[in-house]
Amino acid sequence: MVRIAVDMDEVIADFMSKEIRLFNESNGTAYTKEGIAGKKLRELHPEETENIRKRVSDPTYFSDLPLIDGAKEALEKLAEKHEIFITTAAMEFPTSFNAKYAWLKEHFAFIPESHYVFCGDKSIISADYLIDDHLRHLETFRGQGILFAAPHNAHETYELKLNGWDEVYRYFDEKY
Amino acid sequence: MVRIAVDMDEVIADFMSKEIRLFNESNGTAYTKEGIAGKKLRELHPEETENIRKRVSDPTYFSDLPLIDGAKEALEKLAEKHEIFITTAAMEFPTSFNAKYAWLKEHFAFIPESHYVFCGDKSIISADYLIDDHLRHLETFRGQGILFAAPHNAHETYELKLNGWDEVYRYFDEKY
Repeated sequence: MVRIAVDMDEVIADFMSKEIRLFNESNGTAYTKEGIAGKKLRELHPEETENIRKRVSDPTYFSDLPLIDGAKEALEKLAEKHEIFITTAAMEFPTSFNAKYAWLKEHFAFIPESHYVFCGDKSIISADYLIDDHLRHLETFRGQGILFAAPHNAHETYELKLNGWDEVYRYFDEKY
Repeated sequence: MVRIAVDMDEVIADFMSKEIRLFNESNGTAYTKEGIAGKKLRELHPEETENIRKRVSDPTYFSDLPLIDGAKEALEKLAEKHEIFITTAAMEFPTSFNAKYAWLKEHFAFIPESHYVFCGDKSIISADYLIDDHLRHLETFRGQGILFAAPHNAHETYELKLNGWDEVYRYFDEKY
């Protein structure tokens, strides 16, 4: 048994699809998640930064995020053998606490709430693995990091980068 | 420099004084924090358990808790040399997130919010020290635990139990 810490946004919760959908609705654009790979909306439209920030700061923003494909199924199977913690940098969006908690309760009820962690700096996480879409979190983590492929990190490399939950499941299944 | 993780309730925030004050107001009793040392209100009045739970589940309960004596002064000095994280078992009171966050911002602004951790099981905390008033959290912590003396743990012993923030400050000052 190993302990696997799992990030939320872009790893189990599809933050970006909603961000892009709301952006398109407001601006009459037709961006897609795949289409802007390697870029962020606020880089493409710096003049919209404040509007984007406002939308994702809405306390309900996180409550209806879609699931990342395969996240639930893979974690359900991994949880049979391993210890799963959800570790999210919620302090960047303090308005998100309640919606994030409710979302986890709704979709990941098989992970006990004592294994939810709302933090900022992820170097505080004591685990064997951290699955995260941000290099900056993996860099300070003391265990083995896994960079979870996401449109925004399309051009980033890392010693262990996995593409979707099937690959993540296979990685642990072959190893343990 | 070491990393010190610090619990909130009964360590920096005086949870129990407010709990006792509200209990006395509701029940015409005259309990004091010192007077019930080693006991909990819900042990003395099991029939009041639900009312106590309701009061502390109020989303605003945590917003005006008094400070534990000396906590701010000691942490301000310790933060000059060491890395301080606030690690609180907030998942037990999911209604408390916003009030706890606001309270920390108000009283401990010198600790960056990236160093706030809302968790459940504290074995997830990677730090050199954990200062906590609950033995159960110290037992699963992988670093050196410090049992912070509180009325409810008056009869409990631990390899390193310190009495108040002056003692905590002296412990680190002599050691580092």
